Amino acid sequence: MTPTRIKLVIAYDGTNYAGWQVQQSGTGVQEVIEGAFAKLFNIPFRIYSSSRTDAGVHAIGMVAHVDVPLGKFKMTDRKLGLALNAHLPPDIRVFESKQVAASFHARFNASGKQYRYFVWNHPAHHPLLHRQIWHVPQPLLLQSMKHAARDFLGKHDFASFAATRDYKMNSTVRTVTRCDIRRSGYMFTFIIEGDGFLYKMCRGIVGTLVQVGQGKIEPAAIPKMLHQKDRKAAGMSAPAAGLVLWKVFYKRSATGKIMDGTEDE
Amino acid sequence: MTPTRIKLVIAYDGTNYAGWQVQQSGTGVQEVIEGAFAKLFNIPFRIYSSSRTDAGVHAIGMVAHVDVPLGKFKMTDRKLGLALNAHLPPDIRVFESKQVAASFHARFNASGKQYRYFVWNHPAHHPLLHRQIWHVPQPLLLQSMKHAARDFLGKHDFASFAATRDYKMNSTVRTVTRCDIRRSGYMFTFIIEGDGFLYKMCRGIVGTLVQVGQGKIEPAAIPKMLHQKDRKAAGMSAPAAGLVLWKVFYKRSATGKIMDGTEDE
Repeated sequence: MTPTRIKLVIAYDGTNYAGWQVQQSGTGVQEVIEGAFAKLFNIPFRIYSSSRTDAGVHAIGMVAHVDVPLGKFKMTDRKLGLALNAHLPPDIRVFESKQVAASFHARFNASGKQYRYFVWNHPAHHPLLHRQIWHVPQPLLLQSMKHAARDFLGKHDFASFAATRDYKMNSTVRTVTRCDIRRSGYMFTFIIEGDGFLYKMCRGIVGTLVQVGQGKIEPAAIPKMLHQKDRKAAGMSAPAAGLVLWKVFYKRSATGKIMDGTEDE
Repeated sequence: MTPTRIKLVIAYDGTNYAGWQVQQSGTGVQEVIEGAFAKLFNIPFRIYSSSRTDAGVHAIGMVAHVDVPLGKFKMTDRKLGLALNAHLPPDIRVFESKQVAASFHARFNASGKQYRYFVWNHPAHHPLLHRQIWHVPQPLLLQSMKHAARDFLGKHDFASFAATRDYKMNSTVRTVTRCDIRRSGYMFTFIIEGDGFLYKMCRGIVGTLVQVGQGKIEPAAIPKMLHQKDRKAAGMSAPAAGLVLWKVFYKRSATGKIMDGTEDE
């Protein structure tokens, strides 16, 4: 029997995990979900994600795909999510599960991603949200940060804002399509969208913008930082806890048909 | 030396506490804060709050007052909050501390309060916010809830919506000045303001509105429920975890001077 390709939308609190995928030590979110599949169907599973979030980073809209012999188990695609959640810890939830075309690939078909980063800008830490924010006690200048944020928009080489990994063989050019900062009371939300992100790129952008907001970096300094293509040229990296993979976007195909065979994102 | 009266704004995650004030067992938020004062000044303290939240209920804007011999310790009112936070666990934070007139009383001068209640209306629980929401998996009808919410506005006897306590001697009449429901994605926020609240009154209102949203109670049923003055006439009580004491309001005095001697709320 041909397995059914399922698209999953997954949310998790990354606090207790060593990231999506595990390299050396700790538990990865991926293996916990694969374990839930294995418990449910009694066979080993491999799931393929759009992104690999780092240790401590959260997700609301992580997307993954998996091939499941649903028919054999007489289960609908929609019921699968509920069944999986019964085998998952409370800090990982499957929000959606639906059948997609066998050609759908969570990573290769993704056209873009949205990350959100939460900064709590009050002298005291936030006792209700301390796992999901970066606490910055010194007052931040919103207008300076907004001014600087505009310079990240567009197609740039983001080497200065990404942690060094083996990018020798790959391009460090990415296109950022949105870089907004919203303020509600003491909470600043950074909304960053792009066609792809280098390792720790969002955190490099937010850390640098926060240093602009603190007056430690000139708002006009971003173009020069980008131009230098050197991590040391840019500002600090924001901590993992404030970052949430918010949404992954998929294109319509040329014929107007949706790439995942269902609705638009 | 005359002590200085200090107004405190306090936030806490109520998950691990038996409420603001402890009756029999468990740890109360109040005693933890009094303990922090005692550690800081080496003398026993008593703090007086605007409200007594129940076990598991959270606060962002709890207000309390306390008399502190600040001058003796050469400490400014603004520094007091920071100093206290060093002696408090991460789930309790003092957000503000400022000197007020000696006549200011956190409870007797309060003119109103705002509570917010968070309902997550998605088949799966929210892995990042599960301590601060009520998870209602069945779809809720927003328009029915908004319709019913309007009937709580105004001056009513809220006996049907409050848990039985010793109200024999006291009035159960309160004035609700705001009862809004906002939706953002799968999250519903109930915003309820009034001149005062009976024991578990907010949770009775939200629980009943959610049952209206589920189609279990008619949207037009609220006036009759209020009229019956019997807890059994109304709907269920929403769980503690979703409730947050958001803000406490203080009036300007008749002369336009602020009751707490500083700025308006």
